[in-house]
Amino acid sequence: MAKPWATLGVDLHLEPAGGGLRRGLTDALREAVRTGRLAPGTRLPSSRALAADLGIARNTVADSYADLVAEGWLTARQGSGTRVADRAVVPPTGTAPRPRGPARPAHDLRPGTPDLASFPRAEWLKAARRALAAAPNDALGYGDPRGRPELRTALAGYLARVRGVRADPERLLVCGGFAHGLSLLATVLRARGVHTVAVESYGLGAHRDLLTGAGLRTVPLPLDALGTDPDVPRGAGAVLLTPAHQFPLGMPLHPDRRAAVVDWARRTGGLVLEDDYDGEFRYDRQPVGALQGLDPDRVVHLGTASKSLTPGLRLAWTVLPPGLTDALTAARGAQDTCGALDQLTLAEFLTSGAYDRHVRAARLRYRRRRDALVAEVAARAPRVRVTGIAAGLHAVLRLPPGTEQPVLRAAAWQGLGLHGLASFRHPDATTDPVDAVVVGYGTPPDHAWAGALEALCRTLP
Amino acid sequence: MAKPWATLGVDLHLEPAGGGLRRGLTDALREAVRTGRLAPGTRLPSSRALAADLGIARNTVADSYADLVAEGWLTARQGSGTRVADRAVVPPTGTAPRPRGPARPAHDLRPGTPDLASFPRAEWLKAARRALAAAPNDALGYGDPRGRPELRTALAGYLARVRGVRADPERLLVCGGFAHGLSLLATVLRARGVHTVAVESYGLGAHRDLLTGAGLRTVPLPLDALGTDPDVPRGAGAVLLTPAHQFPLGMPLHPDRRAAVVDWARRTGGLVLEDDYDGEFRYDRQPVGALQGLDPDRVVHLGTASKSLTPGLRLAWTVLPPGLTDALTAARGAQDTCGALDQLTLAEFLTSGAYDRHVRAARLRYRRRRDALVAEVAARAPRVRVTGIAAGLHAVLRLPPGTEQPVLRAAAWQGLGLHGLASFRHPDATTDPVDAVVVGYGTPPDHAWAGALEALCRTLP
Repeated sequence: MAKPWATLGVDLHLEPAGGGLRRGLTDALREAVRTGRLAPGTRLPSSRALAADLGIARNTVADSYADLVAEGWLTARQGSGTRVADRAVVPPTGTAPRPRGPARPAHDLRPGTPDLASFPRAEWLKAARRALAAAPNDALGYGDPRGRPELRTALAGYLARVRGVRADPERLLVCGGFAHGLSLLATVLRARGVHTVAVESYGLGAHRDLLTGAGLRTVPLPLDALGTDPDVPRGAGAVLLTPAHQFPLGMPLHPDRRAAVVDWARRTGGLVLEDDYDGEFRYDRQPVGALQGLDPDRVVHLGTASKSLTPGLRLAWTVLPPGLTDALTAARGAQDTCGALDQLTLAEFLTSGAYDRHVRAARLRYRRRRDALVAEVAARAPRVRVTGIAAGLHAVLRLPPGTEQPVLRAAAWQGLGLHGLASFRHPDATTDPVDAVVVGYGTPPDHAWAGALEALCRTLP
Repeated sequence: MAKPWATLGVDLHLEPAGGGLRRGLTDALREAVRTGRLAPGTRLPSSRALAADLGIARNTVADSYADLVAEGWLTARQGSGTRVADRAVVPPTGTAPRPRGPARPAHDLRPGTPDLASFPRAEWLKAARRALAAAPNDALGYGDPRGRPELRTALAGYLARVRGVRADPERLLVCGGFAHGLSLLATVLRARGVHTVAVESYGLGAHRDLLTGAGLRTVPLPLDALGTDPDVPRGAGAVLLTPAHQFPLGMPLHPDRRAAVVDWARRTGGLVLEDDYDGEFRYDRQPVGALQGLDPDRVVHLGTASKSLTPGLRLAWTVLPPGLTDALTAARGAQDTCGALDQLTLAEFLTSGAYDRHVRAARLRYRRRRDALVAEVAARAPRVRVTGIAAGLHAVLRLPPGTEQPVLRAAAWQGLGLHGLASFRHPDATTDPVDAVVVGYGTPPDHAWAGALEALCRTLP
């Protein structure tokens, strides 16, 4: 059996342009070299192999090669075969390099990303190996648009056990990150006639923008020490909350308010969107369960692997009330699913216990960082109060009035990536602003943590 | 020519469940009535007609009808034929299990999925291990919304070399499947004031639906032996084509028409969307390069790993003209990217040569299947002509006039998944319809191929 391209090792696309075989081949090869499709140094197939592939005489290929060597496009050396000459390939015009993003800070304390160095690469590969060995062929095809059943089942069990979510795999949708899930929900809500979504006075601007982009207005709810006050204005059809650990301020939603927001939803037919972004990372006694457990018919639970594992996986999940599953599945489009291999691997990671082990180890490591942050700030900046530290990967440092902007300027000068609390504030928020910075202590790798903490303390008043 | 189902008015999907022909037919019909798929009052075909369709004895059908009349599911009256009885069909209560999709056919020759068993699991895991070992921590974070640079660079090189695409990594967008890319393009086109997209007379209904769902009207272009005639109607702002291998008919677009469609785009400022779904799989001498090479400013090239590797990866790519990259990147949303690990692994798979090796081996295997299909059909069904076989994972079997529907019914009865050409036809197409079935010979695993081919030949006239 002939294996025509075996000697080439790469596929080569040639279009003879007429004018005889030799001329056509010569032109096609020259064009391929000229435009850079054949990179300098690339070894060409032997004239015998290429001739067999193209079904032409070997001499034609040999002559064509010789022409191009003569023209300087190719080089031929004994023992090294025929190669593309090392010559400057003129780049196509009009493709100016894209401007690069702002340079990375020397120390990064912006919240939202876990320590990427702690992603358990070896454990993940082991799980991938086991998952791929066990997967039926069908698992690699076009799948259920809700996500792989293996993962939906594993997540339902995990969320019930760890977060108190009342989860049914049939009503669980795997999506490509929290923002993807929120975007699908926004589309469905808008299609159902919702115009306004109540949000927290402090939160991620990107999430508010996403709702606005879907045609929804956002109105801020007031906030105090008990968390967000769910006094949802008339006309709002949904409310977006971070009940376990307010982002970024860090307090859990008070039990009375948890009950009140569910009451609001029942009374008005509204929907509560629960952003449970870092529910796994709690350090002190009282775990705060998912709000969804109070009323799975009125609360959508959204979780993600972006904080517990890594954002690069692009894996998150929504647990939906009846009636929303089909609508969201339809909104995403039948083929807009996540990669099956990562889904199968995460399912294996969950069921094998590797996920629990990883979260436990990460929790310990982050807790040590938190304790160091609290101790260091207390020692070196006694006017600064560290709050919101019961859970999560970030803390809020309350600053003396009027010092937020100076601290941020000092941080920029130190090469320290740091966000002020004001940047998370809803433009229409009425809650009194306070001066503070949000410290994402999860972000730096271990070896850089001490330096980042030192740089932070130098910027504090 | 008998048209046995004309009196039925609905398509009847019957799956014999084993236990003998009469029992199987009775069970299938009962189930169809019980679940409401056959509505009360529906008139069934005569026992003679149904028997002819299913290729079974008339008595078997008559006995089966009699059983169901006795059970009360059907009624039989002189002069009015056999009908579904008027009985209340009880709707499912509460959270009944989701209706399962139709059971998988015993043999699957529907096009669109490669042989999932041939996904190179071990090679993929090796590449994943190398990719993860080499990846910097940053690669696991929130990434460039266009996709990992490693993959964009590897794809640009590969597409230039193998498909003649003029690809710049800066203008390449990694997306979650062809449909995802098309959906983003539809959104951007609509936002730019395009109302109408010209499509081919034959193609995937799902793609047309996707355009329609984005608010675009689709108009079919005529088609003949030279491929689609790019006589784009006034008012259309884009045209969606499969130039290398028309889907599903299989001919390449004639060089004059390739030039003509690019001319149209230049003249009118329109955009050509090139669906290069199976460009890697060509079997005969003349490779057909990507249309995009003719004018990278007016042609969007869309490719996918769904055919060459597996749909489960959900990885595809678009190579965009200047000015569209930012618009598409914005349309997808900053965080709606594909999993970084699969992207890094595919980049490693491409640059290490594993992709070329895999495609080469797959091409050989699929080519053998194609040759067997051609030989077997020629020997056993000389009235059937196999066409569109120069490339790809499917062929079109031209049938004698009036036999498409009977062949499909016989196929269903044989447990053979098979699509008729009519199901790919644009509802407004004016091209004369021909009777044909589309045979996805890539779909079955190796061990099932001989059985699928045998079942196919049994259904052919």
